[in-house]
Amino acid sequence: MTEERIFNFNAGPAALPLPVLQEIQASFLNFKGSGMSITEVSHRSPWFDDVINDAVDRTKRLLGLDERYHVLFLQGGASLQFAMIPMNFLGEGKSADYVNTGTWSTKAIKEAAILNKAHNVVASSEDKNFSYIPNDISFNADAAYVHITSNNTIKGTQWESFPDTNGVPIVADMSSDILSRPLPMDKFGMIYAGAQKNMGPSGTCMVIVRDDLLATAEKDLPSMLKYDTFVSKNSMYNTPPCFGVYTIQLVLKWLEQEMGGLEKMQAHNEKKGAMLYEFMDGSDFYRATAEKGSRSLMNVTFRLPTEDLEKEFIAAATQKGLGGLKGHRSVGGCRASIYNATTMAAVEALIDFMTAFKKKQ
Amino acid sequence: MTEERIFNFNAGPAALPLPVLQEIQASFLNFKGSGMSITEVSHRSPWFDDVINDAVDRTKRLLGLDERYHVLFLQGGASLQFAMIPMNFLGEGKSADYVNTGTWSTKAIKEAAILNKAHNVVASSEDKNFSYIPNDISFNADAAYVHITSNNTIKGTQWESFPDTNGVPIVADMSSDILSRPLPMDKFGMIYAGAQKNMGPSGTCMVIVRDDLLATAEKDLPSMLKYDTFVSKNSMYNTPPCFGVYTIQLVLKWLEQEMGGLEKMQAHNEKKGAMLYEFMDGSDFYRATAEKGSRSLMNVTFRLPTEDLEKEFIAAATQKGLGGLKGHRSVGGCRASIYNATTMAAVEALIDFMTAFKKKQ
Repeated sequence: MTEERIFNFNAGPAALPLPVLQEIQASFLNFKGSGMSITEVSHRSPWFDDVINDAVDRTKRLLGLDERYHVLFLQGGASLQFAMIPMNFLGEGKSADYVNTGTWSTKAIKEAAILNKAHNVVASSEDKNFSYIPNDISFNADAAYVHITSNNTIKGTQWESFPDTNGVPIVADMSSDILSRPLPMDKFGMIYAGAQKNMGPSGTCMVIVRDDLLATAEKDLPSMLKYDTFVSKNSMYNTPPCFGVYTIQLVLKWLEQEMGGLEKMQAHNEKKGAMLYEFMDGSDFYRATAEKGSRSLMNVTFRLPTEDLEKEFIAAATQKGLGGLKGHRSVGGCRASIYNATTMAAVEALIDFMTAFKKKQ
Repeated sequence: MTEERIFNFNAGPAALPLPVLQEIQASFLNFKGSGMSITEVSHRSPWFDDVINDAVDRTKRLLGLDERYHVLFLQGGASLQFAMIPMNFLGEGKSADYVNTGTWSTKAIKEAAILNKAHNVVASSEDKNFSYIPNDISFNADAAYVHITSNNTIKGTQWESFPDTNGVPIVADMSSDILSRPLPMDKFGMIYAGAQKNMGPSGTCMVIVRDDLLATAEKDLPSMLKYDTFVSKNSMYNTPPCFGVYTIQLVLKWLEQEMGGLEKMQAHNEKKGAMLYEFMDGSDFYRATAEKGSRSLMNVTFRLPTEDLEKEFIAAATQKGLGGLKGHRSVGGCRASIYNATTMAAVEALIDFMTAFKKKQ
């Protein structure tokens, strides 16, 4: 069965590490001798306690989090966070700064607006079709937080480094590049990420939140829309998405034990990205769409000379077992998502295919 | 591996049908020839379209839903619904009736109160420790909805039939008995259920909502907290919990093809429940805690003569491969959850064990 698997370049849900999938499969009918599937084990059991506690511990180790940070598992994806963040942190008299780098930032801003919460869009790359990450941004010193999208799956851009916000905590949507590199955590009051790119199946959202930001949160909110609820109950106020947390735990273990941590993961991702971008930069056929200095190491967006050739390219690639290379439906073109779990072999196979495809024209 | 599985009486996450788990396991590395795991397949792909559309169709067939009803897959469990329901359906000048039959009803009422939404608790069984389902309730004719919890996992009670509300739509939390029997759908404006008892893994919540109730919903809500968002996008405004929807689809297929639909499922559940209750009624050692006429066919709660005996009973049962018999931590005692997937063989094994345990005293 394994050898029939494709090279998966989907933007999310996306490729997961094969050893993780194999471990899930092998123990699916009997998890750790419990006599139950992980999908049947009570969340109030020692079996699941071990899973969630290990996932929290590994996240803390990998990112070097001190005791001010809480690692939480929520549901509803990043899209629910777009609303929960202003609900929690923009009480009466407060305002937040938002940087708009594309579709997901725009959606985050929209939810703050729906909630009638004060917010300023302090920078945007919309002038150049979101093909770059703004710099030299003037932030408001009294902002409750600065919201950014660290990696933009649709336009293929990524923050290479994080801005100086004069101590205002950054709240970052890292759905598509969490755990792909070490982070200067001191800058972040909160990080959130849907699992379905670098961590696990869709339906689980990791939230990492710091005490000082948490202390500013509104109190009179529905229980499931308050970060405090999840902090005080170790993410188990109600039944958590157990299978998602379990898969994340295995991916975190793989990151520590197989990949050797985030510095090595970053080096690996840089190598994959460099190979692909250098190949395209040396070609007059494939053109990367993001500006240099803003290029994503997770989602490599590119165009061919014509839309007809792009269609042909995607179809031929699919035939050859290279899947998910179609660009987002809102922008067209091509996209190779090369998250943590994408192997060097997959990138090499893609470059080989791209070389051969060009030769045939 | 199969033969090492236990008889699983957990209240949720709970036992799932073995053929469903086996199918998931067998195709886990390569879903329907896609060359990807179901956890890696894009939600914007024909593969996942087939999954979610089939799950919707099967739910409609099983429950006999006409075109007024929408079948949705959300996240956040029933607990998030406790807040979303008043947010959506209790705008200015509206009020709802709530019936309090235990912990989960109480939580639903609490969220309406946090949101400052007008609501009346029109009946409660708190006077007798929630051991029965109230009847002869006076509902308010102008209520926006009547909220009930159809089955109470902690106290082991269940609505045998549903009240006449003078046309006011019932909104029912059916987390622990959905798809266990046919339903008089005309009475229901909305049904919601966390998947982790009768349908699949935790992390997916099924919502069935009717057009006339939907038409009364508030418009200015965060996107992810509006039912309209899910209706207009076939539950895919953002990435849905794909693995959960997939498991639910397989459970629905099992319900239709293996169990023969909801009437047969109900007959099976009645047989299992009758065996267990009749056994206890004929015993002076085991005592069912719910009143006759309100007894749950999903969660059979019972006591032994002393708490020490209960501890010994639970430990000895676990040793014999009968798991999850401990009562909810808030009430103590014992509980056998016998959801759809619990086999007759499991109930027979439980009764055999109970008989032997009593004999040894």
